[in-house]
Amino acid sequence: MARKNAFYAQSGGVTAVINASACGVLETAREHSDEIGKVYAGRNGIMGALTEDLIDTSAESGDAIAALKYTPGAAFGSCRYKLASFQEHRAQYERLIEVFRAHDIGYFFYNGGGDSQDTAYKVSQLGAELDYPIICVGIPKTVDNDLPITDSSPGFGSAAKYLATSVREAAFDLASMSRSSTKVFALEVMGRHAGWTTAACALAADHDGAAPHVLLLPEVTFNQKPFLTKVEQTLERYGHCVIAVSEGIKGPDGKFLSASGEDAFGHAQLGGAAPVLTNLINANLGCKCHWAVPDYLQRSARHLASKTDVEQAYAVGRVAVEFATAGKNAVMPAIRRLSDAPYQWDIVEAPLSEIANQEKLLPPDFITADGFGITEAARRYLAPLVVGEAYPAFKNGLPEYVKLQNAPAPKKLKREFAV
Amino acid sequence: MARKNAFYAQSGGVTAVINASACGVLETAREHSDEIGKVYAGRNGIMGALTEDLIDTSAESGDAIAALKYTPGAAFGSCRYKLASFQEHRAQYERLIEVFRAHDIGYFFYNGGGDSQDTAYKVSQLGAELDYPIICVGIPKTVDNDLPITDSSPGFGSAAKYLATSVREAAFDLASMSRSSTKVFALEVMGRHAGWTTAACALAADHDGAAPHVLLLPEVTFNQKPFLTKVEQTLERYGHCVIAVSEGIKGPDGKFLSASGEDAFGHAQLGGAAPVLTNLINANLGCKCHWAVPDYLQRSARHLASKTDVEQAYAVGRVAVEFATAGKNAVMPAIRRLSDAPYQWDIVEAPLSEIANQEKLLPPDFITADGFGITEAARRYLAPLVVGEAYPAFKNGLPEYVKLQNAPAPKKLKREFAV
Repeated sequence: MARKNAFYAQSGGVTAVINASACGVLETAREHSDEIGKVYAGRNGIMGALTEDLIDTSAESGDAIAALKYTPGAAFGSCRYKLASFQEHRAQYERLIEVFRAHDIGYFFYNGGGDSQDTAYKVSQLGAELDYPIICVGIPKTVDNDLPITDSSPGFGSAAKYLATSVREAAFDLASMSRSSTKVFALEVMGRHAGWTTAACALAADHDGAAPHVLLLPEVTFNQKPFLTKVEQTLERYGHCVIAVSEGIKGPDGKFLSASGEDAFGHAQLGGAAPVLTNLINANLGCKCHWAVPDYLQRSARHLASKTDVEQAYAVGRVAVEFATAGKNAVMPAIRRLSDAPYQWDIVEAPLSEIANQEKLLPPDFITADGFGITEAARRYLAPLVVGEAYPAFKNGLPEYVKLQNAPAPKKLKREFAV
Repeated sequence: MARKNAFYAQSGGVTAVINASACGVLETAREHSDEIGKVYAGRNGIMGALTEDLIDTSAESGDAIAALKYTPGAAFGSCRYKLASFQEHRAQYERLIEVFRAHDIGYFFYNGGGDSQDTAYKVSQLGAELDYPIICVGIPKTVDNDLPITDSSPGFGSAAKYLATSVREAAFDLASMSRSSTKVFALEVMGRHAGWTTAACALAADHDGAAPHVLLLPEVTFNQKPFLTKVEQTLERYGHCVIAVSEGIKGPDGKFLSASGEDAFGHAQLGGAAPVLTNLINANLGCKCHWAVPDYLQRSARHLASKTDVEQAYAVGRVAVEFATAGKNAVMPAIRRLSDAPYQWDIVEAPLSEIANQEKLLPPDFITADGFGITEAARRYLAPLVVGEAYPAFKNGLPEYVKLQNAPAPKKLKREFAV
């Protein structure tokens, strides 16, 4: 293929390390200047392509690109925006082609989770569907760890490390207070459908009886009675109880627990599973409870990123470019685990068609029989993903993160396109 | 004074560095073995003294004591327990004397905030009131930073560093998402009466327009209209808005905002100021909001402690012992600031009588005219307190914290005492 420009964009909820993937893409593209000209970043994901809002990354210094490896968020902006099918919204694809042609774009890299890989897959079909040949490579990213085929998803290891660390630290706090004050602490974890992040909290427990004492996974139906019994037993035994609860747990009626707060108390956004849960405990067991909802903090805590995760995020960015220059379309670099301990991995190619819109849940053999914990198999899987520290630089006591210039590439099209 | 044993205990809400003070006390006491025999730690603060539940710290290795400098929570347990006055509950003081006499205790160190310094002050009067001579030294601690006389309180700098870092990181996340999804993020901060921790969030802003855009301090009455106008203006200007809100903000009616959630929606513990606030924004401005309540995480995040804070926490522990062996009763080591930049400080002695039950709020000249931010004077005050990193050791990807043996000292009294 003749030398072509590339498009790169970030999509969906961000992570502490998605910019490490951006760094991998941009640095590797610069090494392949024979095949790849400029890399245009889409401002706010695919929306940047549709609106011809492109960022000329060649204006960024090598140092700024390197600093992306240590910076959370999405350096070029992200989006929640799904492409309709070719049948439903052909004009959207014609617009993409118009923009790609105007900027001589022959490579398309899309960095995101399941929904975003759906976008990537659709773009990869532009050649077959609309006769615009393009090489499209998806790049995995999600704190939820729910992408199929890849052994783990970049972003997850850092969220896992943050959550397990937070559980361990909060447990030291709770144990200190429990004699005369708070006895229960519930941490609410992201991951509406898949329980990987909640399961990762269990890594905090390094000995029998250590926190967290109860996990509430979205894969397991929440039942009040056995739950309250479990909390009560834990309190009797250890004097305090730490709970990690997925935001997505559902009761036997199939409704989100946080939504049950909504029904009873009037407003959806007040809820959160953790406060509903601690209310329940307080009402039934009468002890003082605390709860935390770290929300964005758990997916942007670059100060506590997993070194393993940063390396994998960078690697999938790098390999994505290598796949592209090797002419591979409609694929995604996937992490393959070679061994648990010592942890060894490499990167293989996965077809986008098998990745898009799939959700990988916790397998049943990762969940203990009572539903409140994880098995040794789960622990073996999770343990290596949080290993290693990769601290950002600090200045005046706070982490120093890069802001790119993000200079817009001059528009070449007259026509606007509404998104 | 003849060689006497010492009592040390931790009290009130814990911090990431209260154990660094414990480390300072224990290491320094060991250096003063001519004057101080054993150090007995009270299990769960003053309750340990009343119930004769004493821990013999001489059983702990030097390495374990040193590791306290890197471990959050209260190594000997804390409590929320206030001594009544001599008049109200003389039996309580007689019991303390009984326990102190049985264990030959002549030094009393009490590590905590305003309420705890009240306990320390009362114990310091045992000589005058009940003819049991004891040297009592308070040791400052509180994430709220509301102790008087001392320039800052150990524990605050680390909470401040955690909060400012979290705001900066979450702001990168929010800015990434704001084009097509969430536009407002509210972080709820501890500190029911004093706004120091909320103010510290402003350290995240290193340039004009950087997050946080709005602070809601407990010292400033919350009014919906100017607040919504401020958020709207911020959204127009920057496309997103980050808010740091104290859990203790009150409306014009003098009621907690979180309690107004209680009235409207049915249950006290569901609330939290942040969800109430984001509901308000959503209802009035129609944009998607996220909120976080880090709760215990902000006061136990030892992984991100301020080196300055750790050093000061250790120093007040060390100096407390030096005060005691110099025969100084009813005092507390206080941090005195000598200069802002370069930051220089030393430790002076403060009378417990002037510390107990006092609350130091943000001074008016630290708050901007519109009430939504802090002044340069506040920034100059806050900036040095978060400087420096003091990472704990990590093992298998998680911070390695010490658990002491906490072997109970044999009881010498037959009589039990109910607390």
